[in-house]
Amino acid sequence: MSSKLKVAVLGATGYSGLELTRILLRHPRVDKPVLLRRAENSAPDTERLPHPSRFSKGGNHENIELNLVDIFPALSGNGRYPLEPLSWSSLKQQAIELLFLATPHDVSRALVPEAVRHGMRVIDLSGAWRLKQAQHRAIYGFKDEESVTAAELTERAVYGLPELNADKIPTASIVANPGCYATTVILGLAPLLKAGLADREKGIIADSKSGVSGAGKEATSRTHFVSVADNLSAYSVFNHRHLGEIAEQLHVSTNEITFTPHLLPIPRGILSTIYVHLKQAMQTSEIEKVYRDFYKGKRFVRVFATPKLPEIQFSLNTNYCDLGFCLAPDGQRLVIVSCEDNLIKGAAGQAVQNMNLMYGFPEEEGLL
Amino acid sequence: MSSKLKVAVLGATGYSGLELTRILLRHPRVDKPVLLRRAENSAPDTERLPHPSRFSKGGNHENIELNLVDIFPALSGNGRYPLEPLSWSSLKQQAIELLFLATPHDVSRALVPEAVRHGMRVIDLSGAWRLKQAQHRAIYGFKDEESVTAAELTERAVYGLPELNADKIPTASIVANPGCYATTVILGLAPLLKAGLADREKGIIADSKSGVSGAGKEATSRTHFVSVADNLSAYSVFNHRHLGEIAEQLHVSTNEITFTPHLLPIPRGILSTIYVHLKQAMQTSEIEKVYRDFYKGKRFVRVFATPKLPEIQFSLNTNYCDLGFCLAPDGQRLVIVSCEDNLIKGAAGQAVQNMNLMYGFPEEEGLL
Amino acid sequence: MSSKLKVAVLGATGYSGLELTRILLRHPRVDKPVLLRRAENSAPDTERLPHPSRFSKGGNHENIELNLVDIFPALSGNGRYPLEPLSWSSLKQQAIELLFLATPHDVSRALVPEAVRHGMRVIDLSGAWRLKQAQHRAIYGFKDEESVTAAELTERAVYGLPELNADKIPTASIVANPGCYATTVILGLAPLLKAGLADREKGIIADSKSGVSGAGKEATSRTHFVSVADNLSAYSVFNHRHLGEIAEQLHVSTNEITFTPHLLPIPRGILSTIYVHLKQAMQTSEIEKVYRDFYKGKRFVRVFATPKLPEIQFSLNTNYCDLGFCLAPDGQRLVIVSCEDNLIKGAAGQAVQNMNLMYGFPEEEGLL
Amino acid sequence: MSSKLKVAVLGATGYSGLELTRILLRHPRVDKPVLLRRAENSAPDTERLPHPSRFSKGGNHENIELNLVDIFPALSGNGRYPLEPLSWSSLKQQAIELLFLATPHDVSRALVPEAVRHGMRVIDLSGAWRLKQAQHRAIYGFKDEESVTAAELTERAVYGLPELNADKIPTASIVANPGCYATTVILGLAPLLKAGLADREKGIIADSKSGVSGAGKEATSRTHFVSVADNLSAYSVFNHRHLGEIAEQLHVSTNEITFTPHLLPIPRGILSTIYVHLKQAMQTSEIEKVYRDFYKGKRFVRVFATPKLPEIQFSLNTNYCDLGFCLAPDGQRLVIVSCEDNLIKGAAGQAVQNMNLMYGFPEEEGLL
Repeated sequence: MSSKLKVAVLGATGYSGLELTRILLRHPRVDKPVLLRRAENSAPDTERLPHPSRFSKGGNHENIELNLVDIFPALSGNGRYPLEPLSWSSLKQQAIELLFLATPHDVSRALVPEAVRHGMRVIDLSGAWRLKQAQHRAIYGFKDEESVTAAELTERAVYGLPELNADKIPTASIVANPGCYATTVILGLAPLLKAGLADREKGIIADSKSGVSGAGKEATSRTHFVSVADNLSAYSVFNHRHLGEIAEQLHVSTNEITFTPHLLPIPRGILSTIYVHLKQAMQTSEIEKVYRDFYKGKRFVRVFATPKLPEIQFSLNTNYCDLGFCLAPDGQRLVIVSCEDNLIKGAAGQAVQNMNLMYGFPEEEGLL
Repeated sequence: MSSKLKVAVLGATGYSGLELTRILLRHPRVDKPVLLRRAENSAPDTERLPHPSRFSKGGNHENIELNLVDIFPALSGNGRYPLEPLSWSSLKQQAIELLFLATPHDVSRALVPEAVRHGMRVIDLSGAWRLKQAQHRAIYGFKDEESVTAAELTERAVYGLPELNADKIPTASIVANPGCYATTVILGLAPLLKAGLADREKGIIADSKSGVSGAGKEATSRTHFVSVADNLSAYSVFNHRHLGEIAEQLHVSTNEITFTPHLLPIPRGILSTIYVHLKQAMQTSEIEKVYRDFYKGKRFVRVFATPKLPEIQFSLNTNYCDLGFCLAPDGQRLVIVSCEDNLIKGAAGQAVQNMNLMYGFPEEEGLL
Repeated sequence: MSSKLKVAVLGATGYSGLELTRILLRHPRVDKPVLLRRAENSAPDTERLPHPSRFSKGGNHENIELNLVDIFPALSGNGRYPLEPLSWSSLKQQAIELLFLATPHDVSRALVPEAVRHGMRVIDLSGAWRLKQAQHRAIYGFKDEESVTAAELTERAVYGLPELNADKIPTASIVANPGCYATTVILGLAPLLKAGLADREKGIIADSKSGVSGAGKEATSRTHFVSVADNLSAYSVFNHRHLGEIAEQLHVSTNEITFTPHLLPIPRGILSTIYVHLKQAMQTSEIEKVYRDFYKGKRFVRVFATPKLPEIQFSLNTNYCDLGFCLAPDGQRLVIVSCEDNLIKGAAGQAVQNMNLMYGFPEEEGLL
Repeated sequence: MSSKLKVAVLGATGYSGLELTRILLRHPRVDKPVLLRRAENSAPDTERLPHPSRFSKGGNHENIELNLVDIFPALSGNGRYPLEPLSWSSLKQQAIELLFLATPHDVSRALVPEAVRHGMRVIDLSGAWRLKQAQHRAIYGFKDEESVTAAELTERAVYGLPELNADKIPTASIVANPGCYATTVILGLAPLLKAGLADREKGIIADSKSGVSGAGKEATSRTHFVSVADNLSAYSVFNHRHLGEIAEQLHVSTNEITFTPHLLPIPRGILSTIYVHLKQAMQTSEIEKVYRDFYKGKRFVRVFATPKLPEIQFSLNTNYCDLGFCLAPDGQRLVIVSCEDNLIKGAAGQAVQNMNLMYGFPEEEGLL
């Protein structure tokens, strides 16, 4: 028991944070995680809670026990999960080694330097530390650079896609957990691009569709049930934040790849339909071999045998990213279908996969 | 053209108000309705608009043309529908005879006396004027009584359920359009109760299920897609606002009827399953006869032939309330299934049905 | 009354046929349509009915009155709609001028020559007569050619996309109503391709997503609620039947355009995301002008002003095809979003629009 | 390893059977289950498979390896799960001790006597062995009695609701796993009825709503996505098969309880709203105490603290049955809300809970 890893989670009241908490609670090598809320003198994130009114009486937030079970009754039956105010000294006292941040990117941008200063390793689920190129960070509004520290930590942070960066993650102090869309697109394209098979001049298209949990828990007119149900909409075409990490990780320019996200009327799951021109005509079996070789030994990528294609349902509630292929009769146009559960492989599961690599646990521990 | 009825709608940016506007635009006896927003010196209802940011720049709301097409692009293609600030003098100048209010109940409570004072007739879609008994009004927070006027207008207002009050609606100056749930329950029970067939001592149950549009357009944690999808929940058991009007119209006490609303993962539609004990054993054919006789000549109630039961889909996009029956083998327990589209028969369609009665138009004009 | 057009519908028990019947019933220039079922000596299409058991007792199908209201209770309240067995002599007796076929393509292939021989004009909603090129017809399994008649009628049939073929439709004896997917893709691309602005060598992508009604009413494992809900799947990549008509109407080769259909967890509606490389960099305003000029006076195409994009909800229950645009920062990559209701503009509404053109009625009659 | 329990599952291709297989594969005390299909000389259940065509070529079913992964690709990534033809000798050879039947009730009725004769214990998920009273069995079409064996086994079978029958399950040779609806209604009412608090003469109502997986995997017009989506419908009022087991387990007559099932537009989950008159006025705290005392130590019933009510989402993917309460102001009318995941607590999870009791494993093993 005492030999188990001690971790803390900030942001367990969000969708990814909750999923992360659930996985950690079942993980055999991790102590029951410490659940954190923002610092003592900041108001709790009441606008994100299901029944904010319960927490806002009298304005005296400090005296109220915030408990994850009250926010997500689905968790009840196994005791209570109090949300402690974030305090570095308390974390130190509890010997927390690893901090998960499931927070907005500006909060992560502010907190990671502090966490590092206090000697903790961090897995950050936001977009705050994923990007090396200034023009991609600009879309988040990050000044170039806020501080020497930020510039230095940006450099040091490792992009936590285990299938690509398994060599750097084990020793990283900051792991920038990939974006949900980005995971499907990068895993769908990496083998082909690394093998130099794509005709990049003709352009690559990633047409992605995501469930609503990817948009976060904030109640807006866009996430209102009546706006989403019986509907489909495209958004942020040519300027979605995940475009930068896709381009950086695949070493392509944002002029070479077009990324179009769509909002699906389902709670969770992503399907990306990716279009590539091949430099020369190929056989389906050759394509499959490229992918099977690339992902050999990678536990969480499933390469489907043509003509079977992944569907969102197949990967729900799993940490898999599923890949399937369709080749045109001309042998030169390839359609790749890439699916995942955006809250697991696209967020919380991948974070735990990174943790497993960072601490030498089996990669699939707690994830099957 | 000049002989058409001139009407105005306040609240067209909500779900019921939009539906109402659509029906009125197609109505052959009504001029293109004047669409209103709150008074000039009040901020527009930006929190209810899909893209509030568009309207809030600079804080200078007066200079922005608010247009229903911008809020509901589905409406485009037939010109623009500007939202004028409410001004009694302007309404008078435009010779508006009838004002529809699709506004929160407190707004209706404030505006109806003014409208009446300016000589207009009103159809109010809120709960502000539906209740005669003070204890039922209390749940809305109405003081008993704010003013002599309010007391007097409360008395004067007619509950606008055409199948029950067709005699009073034609001459009413204030029509209180029924609640969506209440319409299904009252129409489902009225024939039986008026005939004295129910054993009220054993209690009547109305277990109602509604689509999300019934909860209005406000974005809250309860209306967030992820909260509603793949879910069902009961709420406001024993204290929903519609209980009062159900009790008043059916002349039963709130101790005799139990009403439980549920939130369905669909955009629109209501199904109420109603349970009644009969005083003595009956045949299905006798039950059906009671209902067919009661609703004879009523254009918008469809009595289903047993064993066929209404489903929500059957009444969507129509002004019908559908009724069907199941009788227990003992002949004494009756299940009534009552369905409607909550935005049409439960709101906008019924309002137009009331208008038709008020102005001597055929009851179904504009509604088929 | 006697001067109204007399029409018949075969296939009113399917989704498109029902929608068509509804529109025709409201159409001011058409008599109540005669609803047909297959010939007397063929079994009724029981597998397509909700409660087939009701119709199969005793095997004596002739004596049972099949009625559309029994199949779609939503239609009730306005009398009954009996389904007559198809009989050419009876149609002649009733002076039917126009026959709508909402039938499987092989049935249409067999019936259209007969209808023409009996002097009727036909609007066929299937894919039977849409294709001029033999290799595209092959995917339907049509022998080249079954008969001299089939070859001749194939030649004579007009592709019924009013926005493109308004000159030929008025005099056509056979109108091949376009496929639902094809309508969104062709209308989304035609202005650009006709203007020669697309760099076709880089390939055109149409990534389309459709609601389940597009898959028809047959109950299969693919249309089972549990298979579709909370899911998204791609299918028929590179070999969907609509690819042929898209290629023919746009005058491109099937090597130049990639079409990927997906099954959405919604009952109806299509959104196609279309990707085109431009020959040279353009401004958004120039793109919009090309489309607005092309569709000038076309009542049922709505060109959205950038950056507003169409969503499926906006076109539901309308005959509109909505188009919107996003241009890449490089000015050379264009994303076109095209939406429609697959049962209306994608089927029944377009069929009525064609009828209006064939009989000189106003194009929008019965469709607003 | 060798000490683990050896089990077999017939019916893993259905929804409950798949869920059961998933749970068993993770269960630490059970060997990888043997998955069975019907006997060698019977055709495989092709109509239940997603892509039946794949299995029907040439009619030579014996030579085809049927594999659960092909039917449910979601399972892939952990090896293959072949479906062996059911053979008693083979099961004996493999030392199978426990047979799970997730089969239609008539199949279970035929197979259980054979399994018992071969010395196996059985957990049957169908309705075949749940009912002691002949009039309740009649609704399944069981002759009274087919054979001496059937009569004897009917007597011997234990109704497998662990919260009620924990004393009999451990030694049972046949466990009849409860119906999904029945579980919510019985657990929701048992404490109150056993305590004699309900006024049964005024009647008890269970208004239940279920996701579509409860209707099974067969593709019918009722389970077609377009029939279910945006809809709600009541069915089998007063004659649903689960009524018998509810009445028997609660020791009430079917005249005292009314049970109305509804089909919800969601894949899984049940919410039952239950209405009871109390013999005398009570306090909410008294009600809660009755339930907390009754379920003390019962791991899989969660009693909610008023006014918090269970929702379907809270119990999805868990083995919990959740209970909450609302008491009328008069203290005499009680509404009980009871929720579960119909495939887990309502089927597969409860089956494993029964297995745990039968073999002396901790009750929650494999279920948290």
